[in-house]
Amino acid sequence: MKKKLRLGLIGSGFMGKTHVFGFAAAERVFDLPCDVELATIADVTLAQAEAARAAFGFARATDDWRSLVADPDIDVIDITAPNALHKEMALAAIAAGKHVYCEKPLAPLASDAREMADAAEKAGVRTQVGFNYLCNPMLGLAREMIAGGELGDIRGYRGLHAEDYMADPAAPFTFRHDPAGGGVLADLGSHALATAEFLVGPITRVMGDCVTVIASRPDGKGGVRTVETDDIGRAFLRFENGATGSIEGNWVATGRKMQHDFEVYGTKGALAFSQERFNELHFYSTGDAKGRQGFRRIEAGPDHVPYGRFCVAPGHQLGFNDLKAIEVAGYLDAIAGLRPEPFNFRAGLRIQTLVETIQTSSRNGAWLAV
Amino acid sequence: MKKKLRLGLIGSGFMGKTHVFGFAAAERVFDLPCDVELATIADVTLAQAEAARAAFGFARATDDWRSLVADPDIDVIDITAPNALHKEMALAAIAAGKHVYCEKPLAPLASDAREMADAAEKAGVRTQVGFNYLCNPMLGLAREMIAGGELGDIRGYRGLHAEDYMADPAAPFTFRHDPAGGGVLADLGSHALATAEFLVGPITRVMGDCVTVIASRPDGKGGVRTVETDDIGRAFLRFENGATGSIEGNWVATGRKMQHDFEVYGTKGALAFSQERFNELHFYSTGDAKGRQGFRRIEAGPDHVPYGRFCVAPGHQLGFNDLKAIEVAGYLDAIAGLRPEPFNFRAGLRIQTLVETIQTSSRNGAWLAV
Amino acid sequence: MKKKLRLGLIGSGFMGKTHVFGFAAAERVFDLPCDVELATIADVTLAQAEAARAAFGFARATDDWRSLVADPDIDVIDITAPNALHKEMALAAIAAGKHVYCEKPLAPLASDAREMADAAEKAGVRTQVGFNYLCNPMLGLAREMIAGGELGDIRGYRGLHAEDYMADPAAPFTFRHDPAGGGVLADLGSHALATAEFLVGPITRVMGDCVTVIASRPDGKGGVRTVETDDIGRAFLRFENGATGSIEGNWVATGRKMQHDFEVYGTKGALAFSQERFNELHFYSTGDAKGRQGFRRIEAGPDHVPYGRFCVAPGHQLGFNDLKAIEVAGYLDAIAGLRPEPFNFRAGLRIQTLVETIQTSSRNGAWLAV
Amino acid sequence: MKKKLRLGLIGSGFMGKTHVFGFAAAERVFDLPCDVELATIADVTLAQAEAARAAFGFARATDDWRSLVADPDIDVIDITAPNALHKEMALAAIAAGKHVYCEKPLAPLASDAREMADAAEKAGVRTQVGFNYLCNPMLGLAREMIAGGELGDIRGYRGLHAEDYMADPAAPFTFRHDPAGGGVLADLGSHALATAEFLVGPITRVMGDCVTVIASRPDGKGGVRTVETDDIGRAFLRFENGATGSIEGNWVATGRKMQHDFEVYGTKGALAFSQERFNELHFYSTGDAKGRQGFRRIEAGPDHVPYGRFCVAPGHQLGFNDLKAIEVAGYLDAIAGLRPEPFNFRAGLRIQTLVETIQTSSRNGAWLAV
Repeated sequence: MKKKLRLGLIGSGFMGKTHVFGFAAAERVFDLPCDVELATIADVTLAQAEAARAAFGFARATDDWRSLVADPDIDVIDITAPNALHKEMALAAIAAGKHVYCEKPLAPLASDAREMADAAEKAGVRTQVGFNYLCNPMLGLAREMIAGGELGDIRGYRGLHAEDYMADPAAPFTFRHDPAGGGVLADLGSHALATAEFLVGPITRVMGDCVTVIASRPDGKGGVRTVETDDIGRAFLRFENGATGSIEGNWVATGRKMQHDFEVYGTKGALAFSQERFNELHFYSTGDAKGRQGFRRIEAGPDHVPYGRFCVAPGHQLGFNDLKAIEVAGYLDAIAGLRPEPFNFRAGLRIQTLVETIQTSSRNGAWLAV
Repeated sequence: MKKKLRLGLIGSGFMGKTHVFGFAAAERVFDLPCDVELATIADVTLAQAEAARAAFGFARATDDWRSLVADPDIDVIDITAPNALHKEMALAAIAAGKHVYCEKPLAPLASDAREMADAAEKAGVRTQVGFNYLCNPMLGLAREMIAGGELGDIRGYRGLHAEDYMADPAAPFTFRHDPAGGGVLADLGSHALATAEFLVGPITRVMGDCVTVIASRPDGKGGVRTVETDDIGRAFLRFENGATGSIEGNWVATGRKMQHDFEVYGTKGALAFSQERFNELHFYSTGDAKGRQGFRRIEAGPDHVPYGRFCVAPGHQLGFNDLKAIEVAGYLDAIAGLRPEPFNFRAGLRIQTLVETIQTSSRNGAWLAV
Repeated sequence: MKKKLRLGLIGSGFMGKTHVFGFAAAERVFDLPCDVELATIADVTLAQAEAARAAFGFARATDDWRSLVADPDIDVIDITAPNALHKEMALAAIAAGKHVYCEKPLAPLASDAREMADAAEKAGVRTQVGFNYLCNPMLGLAREMIAGGELGDIRGYRGLHAEDYMADPAAPFTFRHDPAGGGVLADLGSHALATAEFLVGPITRVMGDCVTVIASRPDGKGGVRTVETDDIGRAFLRFENGATGSIEGNWVATGRKMQHDFEVYGTKGALAFSQERFNELHFYSTGDAKGRQGFRRIEAGPDHVPYGRFCVAPGHQLGFNDLKAIEVAGYLDAIAGLRPEPFNFRAGLRIQTLVETIQTSSRNGAWLAV
Repeated sequence: MKKKLRLGLIGSGFMGKTHVFGFAAAERVFDLPCDVELATIADVTLAQAEAARAAFGFARATDDWRSLVADPDIDVIDITAPNALHKEMALAAIAAGKHVYCEKPLAPLASDAREMADAAEKAGVRTQVGFNYLCNPMLGLAREMIAGGELGDIRGYRGLHAEDYMADPAAPFTFRHDPAGGGVLADLGSHALATAEFLVGPITRVMGDCVTVIASRPDGKGGVRTVETDDIGRAFLRFENGATGSIEGNWVATGRKMQHDFEVYGTKGALAFSQERFNELHFYSTGDAKGRQGFRRIEAGPDHVPYGRFCVAPGHQLGFNDLKAIEVAGYLDAIAGLRPEPFNFRAGLRIQTLVETIQTSSRNGAWLAV
């Protein structure tokens, strides 16, 4: 009989839904160490919470997240509420001894994120921040190939995360445009940074270039509001292993829907990847025979763990929600003590620190150590 | 309070698992007309059935499919057992008044498939055959574009379904190599045929070219067994609307994992698609400006129903298992009477008929009407 | 001091111009065994011929091809006139002891092509038919890889040559639509057939499927004319080495400009190629490590003879006219006795024979031996 | 009777050969305003010069470039000698009243390039620097689309020029590694910069990041030599029109042969291009219908001037040497006064200025105005 893990979810929007899909799929796809019970869902109004409860299959609904995090019948708090609330919710949950799963960015300010990470570690609870692109088996393959020396010494890196969902000046001001929200670098650039360190290791120095492209946006109340955050954020990078590189976060890249791409160049080979076709990894090896060298399109398959959990045949492809299921499974294993936390609050803090350092560097017009 | 629909699943292999994933995801992703209860799972031995029960979350397990199909507490029988058993199981379930969901191919022989379709219609139960590639929003888009005249009159079609999972002569003889199993044309060519008719409409005449490439395979008992079925099946096609085309099914196509591809050429435009990148549809329109024409890579997004059910943002991509969830949701809607059966036994019979006609045509070396 | 070779060119249209480009480039790019002198150009009217003379740099112009082919001061006759004239011109040139370079198709009828090939061999002159796609270094690489066993035994082949330049029903009736002209199979399908045999070896049996899509076309005089030739020509193929395959020629493939593509599947690997990106060859090898297999995009470079003649750096790419230069250089070497004729009249006859056999097979609705 | 233009070429290596190909092709392909006479070729030794003379068809050979630039029977001096010699040769030729065609980079130092540009303008001779990637019809199309407003206001730019020809630490020290030679930014980054300004207009500010990856290289005499120049050069960019962007030059990008790529994002559309497939331009338009939007692969054809000069049919593709022919034709038109110089010494100076400013910015770790 498996241990039961009772879930309290805060938020029922895009990400709340994605988390529910993740838990549902993880349960079927993986051999989980526990049974997840969809206990309580909280949202701003009881009507919203109740609708989500019915749709997602939770047992109870509430409009009071404070009572939820204090509920002794809850083991894990999953936070998909707006960024500005993450800290308060997470600290309360940690104080109540819950494990906490929090959507990214962990908190708008690195100082807040640090407080959260410290609290979690002190309390000994297991935490997780949602960086599900890292859960892609092809990213795991890339990391394994780099770590295993298949590319030789890494020399150069280019990373991107570009979309166009803020390209329209008529798109209204949201919490993402709030200085406390961090702009594109916190929203999308953070993914590019997470992937860069996942693959190449710690970044030691950065030079930032953050740009506001759309100076003001409708405030949703008939007026306009000045935007102080970045729409495009670029950085030069220095890695601890000696490699250099660059990343760009961009949410006004007309036409791009999911350009979370990277290229890594080593002394013995190279990798190229695009999230637009995330079931593929392109690999160049100098070890291939003369006249036969070229970037090789590796298609995801059971050789690339944990693809085989979803499908025994190669080439069938995972989807975005499957990445979330992998994330959930990893977190549940960590809660059960079977492996380290895949991407805990400390890791989330690290990303916020990188984001803030790049933003400061951009304001200063000078390189900064991380 | 939604109506409860009690599911009895036969088989717990690759496809059984995929079906369970489909039901689990459909429940979260769609606003289903009923609550599906994972009631009973059946497999050859009780041990297998019990293991699957625990893993998939069914209430009961059995090694007796006959008792399962007769169980008055079951509403839908889902058959993922080997092809040769489909008929007996489905007819028994229909006789017991159950709705029946059956993996493809419906039956090795068209005559058997006809018997099944007739029985289901006579009994008034809802049926479904698993052709989940058709559930891809991008295939829906393609069909809609063709039906809506965006391509003009259709003139030419090329379809494929090529993989390499039987390319190794050491891959043992299975039920798929049995003459009653139909070979590659029944296994993979059937997908190419289903897609062709889904997009362009009824095929009226065929000329087949079926080839056995690997003459014998290990029989799994230390000996070898002669293969009488095809490893590559090709056909020229005539469509009712005047278009002509071709398809190929191939399971010895070294390097191909999921080449379920098509190209459709009309008087005003063209489409190109590959299941290797199934979240994209490539569209050429003669209506584009001079000097600006080209195949346009449309990425799947919320504009392409029901993608938005899975994710509100474009470009995030669906996976193979998501296609199954769409199939499940469509079938449950049909059971509830909300829409016609998406791909019922009559449709499954149609595919078997096409397969057999092509095989006969190949043997005869002559064109045949379907 | 190199031997001088005096060229007489008949025709100054698209292909005439391409040939002149080919000779000009070949002279600079290759170490040719002779100096080509652009001696005389002939066209239908003296005005056309004179204009072409001035543009292309020929010494003399004429409107009398008969006098040209008889001119003792000419060594090679290069025919780019309409197909229907090829035979008469070539036979006259051969009778006068000239080497003859003739654009494809060699002649509308295989019987005519045979007469031409026989005459040339009897006269001992060197001949060449323009199949310049075969001159692509990447096709040379593909052939070398297949011949060298890198793909193992060849099992399956798919070839295409699809364009859309006849897709518009308003495109007028031309010599290409004349039954004597052969339709799409002679015009484009011939390329697909030439490539198939170049790579996989002799085709022994065919089953054809030739279709007229646009029933009548403007006759250029205000009326319309019924089209009796094919717009789409398909064939199933049997190769001498046991492989099977298919080809399609299509000039009504809306959106396609140069889909001269092929895929070859062997026991140990596969190749995929598109003339749309003809400086690339995609190679899959089963010898690659587990989890690292995939189609590898080999970019043309100096490793692929004779690319290095054009450019010492890889990835810079050859153009269409460069392929013609390679063809010219090969022919001039053959005239000098340095190597066999790359694609002589006998080879041109072979293609016509394949085309006619496929057309006859299509009319008969039955397989035919070639 | 066309005017004769007598060419004196200095250098017979890779670029010398490419220039000869360019002149030979331009003569056939374009309706040039003059007849180019290959008068004299100069190289370091008379033997080299004589061999090149014979191979390329020049009338005379010399090992004395000083006498060549002074020769009254020469109209144009074409310099393809090592970079360090460009200045002295060009100034001497200008002093002698010759038009001067010089390979890039114009000179290692911007101050030298300025002297050259000033001298040429004062003398009233026509000059040209070899930036032939700009001659690609698809780059012309991109520029035309941007200038014509098809992309709306430009917001973001990403440019690259990455190759791997210096990736091997065993590749010896050459003039390109000399501080006076400029490293990768002068060699390859210059192309990325030229393309950026060609498309988006003047760059006003830069922040550079130049990195030496391989610290020392064999000196060719059995020893090693420290490398002080960059192997990777990156820059953030500000454009006069308000757009921001970045470029990277990289010659240690393992696996890349010709990654001269760009992406341009505007308010109404976007373009993506790779020199790896330089006969294509990918265009996204927000004006396309909902659900039908996507990057459109425009294939080069006669709609894209001057493609039609080379080939009347679309999709046949130009090669690298064809780009040089276009460059030559543009320069000859400029000499004849038919149009402005396409890329004169002043333009060459501009690129050197950008390169130096980026290098200085990198050393200073601070933004610089250009």
